[in-house]
Amino acid sequence: MNKIPSLQHLMSELARLPGVGEKTAQRFAYYILKAGKNYSQTLRASLENLELSIHTCPNCFSFTEKTPLCEICDNPQRDHSLICVVEDPFDVFKVESIGGFQGTYHVLQGSLAPLDGIGPEDLRITELVARVKGATPTVRELILVLDADLEGDTTALYLSKILASQQIRITRIAHGVPFGSDIDYIDHRTLGRAFENRVEI
Amino acid sequence: MNKIPSLQHLMSELARLPGVGEKTAQRFAYYILKAGKNYSQTLRASLENLELSIHTCPNCFSFTEKTPLCEICDNPQRDHSLICVVEDPFDVFKVESIGGFQGTYHVLQGSLAPLDGIGPEDLRITELVARVKGATPTVRELILVLDADLEGDTTALYLSKILASQQIRITRIAHGVPFGSDIDYIDHRTLGRAFENRVEI
Repeated sequence: MNKIPSLQHLMSELARLPGVGEKTAQRFAYYILKAGKNYSQTLRASLENLELSIHTCPNCFSFTEKTPLCEICDNPQRDHSLICVVEDPFDVFKVESIGGFQGTYHVLQGSLAPLDGIGPEDLRITELVARVKGATPTVRELILVLDADLEGDTTALYLSKILASQQIRITRIAHGVPFGSDIDYIDHRTLGRAFENRVEI
Repeated sequence: MNKIPSLQHLMSELARLPGVGEKTAQRFAYYILKAGKNYSQTLRASLENLELSIHTCPNCFSFTEKTPLCEICDNPQRDHSLICVVEDPFDVFKVESIGGFQGTYHVLQGSLAPLDGIGPEDLRITELVARVKGATPTVRELILVLDADLEGDTTALYLSKILASQQIRITRIAHGVPFGSDIDYIDHRTLGRAFENRVEI
């Protein structure tokens, strides 16, 4: 049988999803075909619904369905003097999943990566500085929740420098041994950072 | 952050794909959101294209984009006296991938499973019998390419019985040790079948 073009096309689009190779994309496409038009239509409707409803909050740059501001920026119960700075909108969900954080967020939409040509102008850093300067009440603390890699470190350093004149506390979440882990299996960099950041007991 | 309903909805639809759990569906949905509207729109378009272009061939019941018959049924170069009977349309692709088969196909759209309430009337068996009886040139052989399980065995037995009066050869592909396998790791059922079906060398 000659390959069916419309099936091939769907497979190549599905193969763009993370962790999906040619075989898995084929399995997905076959499933969609087998499941019938109903499933395919529902899937299309939910994709379209997402396209239409999601937008970026103009204050914190996270994803939201609410307009004009997102649920968190628009919530007076939240502590607007405390801003958690994250790299992407999904980190907001992650921090929210801890359950205890009552402050607000600022999504940088990436991290500084000079080697990949990503500089401060590509991120929402200007907006963060403007937000910090213009905030009422004044911002008392920025908590940086950035990836524990070179780009995260660079971004943290850059932010602490440009905000040095602002008289606000800038903190970064602790790097160390993950909860429940066996010291034998920890890599030397993590252990090194855990040593540096040791705390009094 | 409150969960975003449109994102949640897409996740639950993606989680229906085979082998995709909640976490993977989340990863896919985040990727689709990150990749931007362009990818989501292309994905929708290819789903819609598939819905509109694919139909079932009225002769062999395989999937095709061609009308009225599929490429194989419509091809005079193919040996129409030789029919390969398979369970679903994807088995057609599989047999075609061997490269040497020049006959035609008949897709049963399932296999007999009395325990699940799937009887002969749920499959394309009546159509197969009609095709065999009405065929010009007469059908000389039916090759059964059915799964090597209880349902496949039941279906093969049933077909051989109802077609017994038709004076055609009915064969089933060999069951035995897969190519490249180590005898130590073969299960006893496969080895049993391989013993039964041993051939002269």
